[in-house]
Amino acid sequence: MRVSVVGGAGYVGGELVRLLLGHPECQLAQVTSASHRGKPVTMVHPNLRGFTDLRFVAPPDLERCDAVVVAGADEPGQGLSLDDLRGRAPLVVDCGTRLRLRHQATFRQWYGTESEPQSVLDAAVYGLPELHRAGLAGAPLISGVGCSAVGTILALLPLARAGWALTSPACVEARFGSSAGGSQPDLGSHHPERSRAVRVFAPEGHRHAAEVAQALGWSSEQLSYAGVAVEMVRGISISVRCFLAEAVTEREVRELFRATYADEPFVRLVAQRSGLHRLPDPRWLSGTNLCDVGFSLDRSGLRLSLFAALDNLGKGSAGNAIQALNCATGMDERTGLTFTGLHPL
Amino acid sequence: MRVSVVGGAGYVGGELVRLLLGHPECQLAQVTSASHRGKPVTMVHPNLRGFTDLRFVAPPDLERCDAVVVAGADEPGQGLSLDDLRGRAPLVVDCGTRLRLRHQATFRQWYGTESEPQSVLDAAVYGLPELHRAGLAGAPLISGVGCSAVGTILALLPLARAGWALTSPACVEARFGSSAGGSQPDLGSHHPERSRAVRVFAPEGHRHAAEVAQALGWSSEQLSYAGVAVEMVRGISISVRCFLAEAVTEREVRELFRATYADEPFVRLVAQRSGLHRLPDPRWLSGTNLCDVGFSLDRSGLRLSLFAALDNLGKGSAGNAIQALNCATGMDERTGLTFTGLHPL
Amino acid sequence: MRVSVVGGAGYVGGELVRLLLGHPECQLAQVTSASHRGKPVTMVHPNLRGFTDLRFVAPPDLERCDAVVVAGADEPGQGLSLDDLRGRAPLVVDCGTRLRLRHQATFRQWYGTESEPQSVLDAAVYGLPELHRAGLAGAPLISGVGCSAVGTILALLPLARAGWALTSPACVEARFGSSAGGSQPDLGSHHPERSRAVRVFAPEGHRHAAEVAQALGWSSEQLSYAGVAVEMVRGISISVRCFLAEAVTEREVRELFRATYADEPFVRLVAQRSGLHRLPDPRWLSGTNLCDVGFSLDRSGLRLSLFAALDNLGKGSAGNAIQALNCATGMDERTGLTFTGLHPL
Amino acid sequence: MRVSVVGGAGYVGGELVRLLLGHPECQLAQVTSASHRGKPVTMVHPNLRGFTDLRFVAPPDLERCDAVVVAGADEPGQGLSLDDLRGRAPLVVDCGTRLRLRHQATFRQWYGTESEPQSVLDAAVYGLPELHRAGLAGAPLISGVGCSAVGTILALLPLARAGWALTSPACVEARFGSSAGGSQPDLGSHHPERSRAVRVFAPEGHRHAAEVAQALGWSSEQLSYAGVAVEMVRGISISVRCFLAEAVTEREVRELFRATYADEPFVRLVAQRSGLHRLPDPRWLSGTNLCDVGFSLDRSGLRLSLFAALDNLGKGSAGNAIQALNCATGMDERTGLTFTGLHPL
Repeated sequence: MRVSVVGGAGYVGGELVRLLLGHPECQLAQVTSASHRGKPVTMVHPNLRGFTDLRFVAPPDLERCDAVVVAGADEPGQGLSLDDLRGRAPLVVDCGTRLRLRHQATFRQWYGTESEPQSVLDAAVYGLPELHRAGLAGAPLISGVGCSAVGTILALLPLARAGWALTSPACVEARFGSSAGGSQPDLGSHHPERSRAVRVFAPEGHRHAAEVAQALGWSSEQLSYAGVAVEMVRGISISVRCFLAEAVTEREVRELFRATYADEPFVRLVAQRSGLHRLPDPRWLSGTNLCDVGFSLDRSGLRLSLFAALDNLGKGSAGNAIQALNCATGMDERTGLTFTGLHPL
Repeated sequence: MRVSVVGGAGYVGGELVRLLLGHPECQLAQVTSASHRGKPVTMVHPNLRGFTDLRFVAPPDLERCDAVVVAGADEPGQGLSLDDLRGRAPLVVDCGTRLRLRHQATFRQWYGTESEPQSVLDAAVYGLPELHRAGLAGAPLISGVGCSAVGTILALLPLARAGWALTSPACVEARFGSSAGGSQPDLGSHHPERSRAVRVFAPEGHRHAAEVAQALGWSSEQLSYAGVAVEMVRGISISVRCFLAEAVTEREVRELFRATYADEPFVRLVAQRSGLHRLPDPRWLSGTNLCDVGFSLDRSGLRLSLFAALDNLGKGSAGNAIQALNCATGMDERTGLTFTGLHPL
Repeated sequence: MRVSVVGGAGYVGGELVRLLLGHPECQLAQVTSASHRGKPVTMVHPNLRGFTDLRFVAPPDLERCDAVVVAGADEPGQGLSLDDLRGRAPLVVDCGTRLRLRHQATFRQWYGTESEPQSVLDAAVYGLPELHRAGLAGAPLISGVGCSAVGTILALLPLARAGWALTSPACVEARFGSSAGGSQPDLGSHHPERSRAVRVFAPEGHRHAAEVAQALGWSSEQLSYAGVAVEMVRGISISVRCFLAEAVTEREVRELFRATYADEPFVRLVAQRSGLHRLPDPRWLSGTNLCDVGFSLDRSGLRLSLFAALDNLGKGSAGNAIQALNCATGMDERTGLTFTGLHPL
Repeated sequence: MRVSVVGGAGYVGGELVRLLLGHPECQLAQVTSASHRGKPVTMVHPNLRGFTDLRFVAPPDLERCDAVVVAGADEPGQGLSLDDLRGRAPLVVDCGTRLRLRHQATFRQWYGTESEPQSVLDAAVYGLPELHRAGLAGAPLISGVGCSAVGTILALLPLARAGWALTSPACVEARFGSSAGGSQPDLGSHHPERSRAVRVFAPEGHRHAAEVAQALGWSSEQLSYAGVAVEMVRGISISVRCFLAEAVTEREVRELFRATYADEPFVRLVAQRSGLHRLPDPRWLSGTNLCDVGFSLDRSGLRLSLFAALDNLGKGSAGNAIQALNCATGMDERTGLTFTGLHPL
């Protein structure tokens, strides 16, 4: 099938291009960029030199194809409305934020700007296959996911589904690599300011909390969600501190996670008792579509820490979008997403 | 006054040497090292080249002096008991862990090894001037402090003193630079494994929690204390999530912090509403004896996040030890500790 | 074909395992490790969790197979001589140093230890397909390559073949990531010492010079070869400063490189006139088997700088070994080596 | 004496402010910034919180004072000509580039823009005390220095003075930390692009070569000067490869360096035969005014590698400017510049 990427000059766009070039069932048709039209794709994505001769086309030059994937915040589909995009292809996957929240009011509350019409939100499926696999099959409009939301959802999903009660809000600490901020330079991402930073940029109320609450069927008040910038380029690391209403055993937690993710190709349980790599760490996930989840329980059985790690450009956006596209079109979900990750890196 | 450093080949030892060489009221007498005896101090501390010609002496060759400062875990005073040290100098400041907890049972519970006699613990003052300034004056035996404990104590102290109640344990996230692990190579600190790591090495129950609980007069159950290794060499960054029983205003929090630290020379309140540097970050604290503290309150007034940042080798150990020594001997507390820190770094 | 890895617990070993698990024509038979026998391979290579259930076997338990690849310095084939290995498999690729130099005397001169018998050296082919593709076909014994030697050889090969004369030794500056030092911790790779280091560890006479000279047919005196450790984990970056005896044009250099590497699947010419990514940088080569080469010529046409970048664990060792194995066994050289690399990273 | 800083919002400006605040003989009068007028100096220089209450003033509001130091490229004295500045203070130290080259033609050749009048260039002293100490005494107009030029000059000066002949151009490799690029964000300094980069941004003909040639009395043709960006924030590391016309002994080189720098307070010879810290590394020089120089000689006695390391914001600009100011005003040259540097960092 022929797939085009809209807004392909940013980091999510580059990762989509990379994944589609290696996807055995897809053919990369066009890559749009308002600012780089006419230039070789490899000028901004040097890793792809020798793998493609494509040049960026202006957004209005987007032709009909079988699916369009819209990259995220860096380069929204300038001049191309959702209607335009849907007119070009029977399947649109939009990695941006506009389709993530199901209700207009919620969107406006968290983003402070006008939302898509409610009918559009109703038509879109939140594109996390681990949550909505059935709904994705045949879906024409699919939303992307928040990079840290993916990890937090997958860390908390077993508990939420099992209905384990917490005595206070789940404390989410989401640690971000710099690529999550996109490809546009600003002072916060200026290397002398960003290098080795441990910067709490969102002490409370990070927007991804809205997605997590929606996905789990929780109130957003049940989450205390902080965002911290740390020294890495790719990668999201999540810790969630939970105080349980009733004590559990480590075995119960392990079984719960195993049962939840037994058939998931991209979720691995990483929860050893010892060793250097006993809990999830994004270091060895760069380039993959994996999300590692883990946990640690204290001796009382009441304090449960959950962990997740992923590549924000992989399972946190572009990789997940391809997985959702695979689901939507009836392909094997893993197609084109088999990279194992590197260690050390 | 003549001051000697015991165990001076590690990172805390090196920082003590650096600070004492620049201390206008102290003369660095001897630096011991069991493993480097006879070698120039500058062989392991290359920053000090040209600033000292001292060579390491074997621990038994430690001579009488006015004060001894024992560096931490890297090189405990091999062959020199606390009694030996106290026989050499009327003032002993021990940066290690053995004197930090006031009760033998607590020490054994957290460290799993035998403690010093209770009489020795009774004689020692926990060396954090912000807590025990009066007690330090003239004290002959002073304990060092845990690097992340300092930040957590100073972040929570205003609340603890004001008696603000929390509805669940305070969630402490302590992020560590690699120098906090000491100067002995191991797999966890091997560069290919440690670079850019986001490694939760203590999901719950980090030992520094015991010091914090003791300092605040809390039960250690009131804390949930996690340790995470992140990519930096020097520096500790602390976040503490608190759910308050009664709502407060931002102004009240600010006033509380200002009142608590108005006269403290080394505690700065960093809590702006915006800007890149609005909350504490250890990046610009390397080499200083400062601890920056800050906070963020959500709109409900019930969710209060506290922050702290410091240099683990500065205010987190060696710098704080010199400050305590200044207090103990009646010097101006700031003597030799005036470095401002660097930015960018 | 069934392939086993000897000494698979180090970084080269882990990369060999990763590549063989993804190789469509190979089946990973066994992975030996003297120190980790019985443990899951994924305990030391966390990226491979879920991709293999293999456990390390002791070296003597190595069974017959179709090919053995010996990882490098970290874990030489303890207890297994080259004869033992050749008795187990008709093809042995040894990533270590013992087969790299063709003559015993040269080996002893550069390594200061006893070499393999001359008859063994005579039987081995230096495993760089860009140099010895024909010789590799059907070869039973193949040598690995020095990671920085690969880049330097491929940067200089066009000139050497064209016979362009230099007026002074070629000044090679090879910049190394920390993984090139192997997986054994030591003080030099201790994170607080290695992080952000710019450490000239070999001011002159790095051993890889011997390989380069041999490959180019030069005297080692024609090279001045320095090694510098810089802050990265994977990656080798090479600069070679050449002063030409006769002026050339940029076009001539470009044509020379294009002609030399026109049919090479893993060598890319990266030599743009402007742009952020105009010259080779190892940042976007991690995990690949690519070697990017480039050049810059000054206005006089006499000062030519050559550049190369590669992943020391990819084209610099494990990847190249698989490429050589592909060549030796008649497979398409690119099989299992199609990863494009990531950007940003 | 009262000293003002012009263009104080950049990195050189911040370092000047820091040094002047700690200078026992200077009082920081004003700090100008065209873009930050009215804001607290500590808003952009967070390390200085609590050390100053100064706010930036607009350049035209600069008042008369005893000396003005102009920070570099980030914020040239907008609206203030050199004449304006000289009208405000009897001593002007300009860290920028406009006074560094002695002849108008040379300036135009290297910078491609119009230079100051020749009379102004004639009046200015190149502000490197190790070169022009006598000339600085009482000088009214002092030029700043190129950060990598300082290291290269101090590495080559002993040879140049001794008249040792080279058989080919000295190959200078200057490795730069990101702060050398200034405080204005751009794509090249965007963290995802800059982190762990090994980017040859100037393969030949870096502008600092002009300063070095001028300082040594060489033709710029005698230098081949490359600039490489590596992963650090502060710091310049220099290697210079020299092929000598006549063989020398290590002892001769050592004596030459010792003799040259015996009385220099800020130049240290770092040239041990072994050990982790045997050659200069900028890691432990951050915040200092030191320049470490070293060398390595091969067995033939003909290949001599020279090394230097410094903090680009210290001895490479702001620190050196204060040293020059000290010289110009008859103060002890070391005043306010006694920081030893930190290790590890």
